[in-house]
Amino acid sequence: MLNVFENKYKITYNDSDFTGRLSIAKLGNFILDTAGLHAAELGISMRVLAEKKMTWVISGLHFAFFDLPETGTVVSVETEITGCTKITCKRDFHIVSEGGRRVADISSEWLVINALTRRPVFLDEVFKDFSSLVNSNCGSVEKYKHLRFLFQDGAEVLKYRVMYSDIDINAHLYSMRYLEIALNMLGAGFFKTGKILSADLNFVSEVLYNQEVEMYYEKSSPQVCRMEMRRDGKPVFRAEFQICSDKN
Amino acid sequence: MLNVFENKYKITYNDSDFTGRLSIAKLGNFILDTAGLHAAELGISMRVLAEKKMTWVISGLHFAFFDLPETGTVVSVETEITGCTKITCKRDFHIVSEGGRRVADISSEWLVINALTRRPVFLDEVFKDFSSLVNSNCGSVEKYKHLRFLFQDGAEVLKYRVMYSDIDINAHLYSMRYLEIALNMLGAGFFKTGKILSADLNFVSEVLYNQEVEMYYEKSSPQVCRMEMRRDGKPVFRAEFQICSDKN
Repeated sequence: MLNVFENKYKITYNDSDFTGRLSIAKLGNFILDTAGLHAAELGISMRVLAEKKMTWVISGLHFAFFDLPETGTVVSVETEITGCTKITCKRDFHIVSEGGRRVADISSEWLVINALTRRPVFLDEVFKDFSSLVNSNCGSVEKYKHLRFLFQDGAEVLKYRVMYSDIDINAHLYSMRYLEIALNMLGAGFFKTGKILSADLNFVSEVLYNQEVEMYYEKSSPQVCRMEMRRDGKPVFRAEFQICSDKN
Repeated sequence: MLNVFENKYKITYNDSDFTGRLSIAKLGNFILDTAGLHAAELGISMRVLAEKKMTWVISGLHFAFFDLPETGTVVSVETEITGCTKITCKRDFHIVSEGGRRVADISSEWLVINALTRRPVFLDEVFKDFSSLVNSNCGSVEKYKHLRFLFQDGAEVLKYRVMYSDIDINAHLYSMRYLEIALNMLGAGFFKTGKILSADLNFVSEVLYNQEVEMYYEKSSPQVCRMEMRRDGKPVFRAEFQICSDKN
């Protein structure tokens, strides 16, 4: 049983955005995949939970970005569980490119929910002695911020209906598609010259297939972009990006 | 210089759809990535072309599907150039899973275009003796069908605006996103019980960032689904899927 788990990914053509560098949402695919592989090693996988009619869901993410590599680069994703409460598990990731350059540090928070009631379950009721999996000797990545926004009139809004290609094995909107839809609000122009320094994501509520959502977007300062996804007027997701408009 | 090139991919969590099996559009990512790696070996890569202010674009695809594997399976993608004309290059793919089961056979047709005029260029004017790269000893995969549709009134229509996450290094709608948007028209319900046996795709015209398209969808028989993407009323993409509604 490995407390620290590592996996490598070669950045494919489609993992990059139009600038030829790893896109942030595709980096998100890498960490979720690595988390799944590590969970399988630890005996706490989605598959194990599915037999108990339960599943993992993500409640929050914090990203600190350093240098996003180009297509073809191999990146190493290292992960470990760095904390837990009765119902939450904190998992950190350190992503480094083959030359040893830091790509990103990421922290994530997870819940186990009952697949029918969609309510959280106590971790110790599902897994015996869950806290023994925590690697407490490590330097922990900062936790995500709890976000609360009050948008001004005139915030930009994008309507979106959830489609087949947006949903994951839980049949709800895939967590990295929330992020991708948020990044889309920044527009391609931003990514030509700008850079995201860090991001905090709050997953408030599940969004199901064919539901319509509205993404609200506002710049609260030249360095801070805020987004809130709503369904029937109620928030389901929030994101805050610290940006710099000149990447050099 | 390798006339036949092979690369392997482990199907990640995000490469699968909600059924837990490799999604067709993500299989498309694998073949495009493999094509790019092979092109680099042959000295005919996008990067080489970019220096001449040219690029590869795809004009058509034919897929024959056998058995789409589950998340975690390693698949091998084998590719070779199986034909060329003055302006087109045909590239075939054979995808097999680790146990040796056939996943899919795919053929693709490519053009080199001038990045400024967006018009095709003679292959022999760009690459010395292009036809020497053709592996003519191999059993070739069927070429894509040229599609022409006349939709009835009452065809389903989906409007879509091209966003940051949809565009590729050429800054136009990524070829596999055309496919993904087409698959979305079938709806998640179809994929629960149904199966796509084969597909033909025609890429008629580039679609750029922020352009709005309409996807038309009609079943011409219980086994055949047809889609046409239009921009300003003019076709930019067509797809035909041979389906069976019971996957077993």
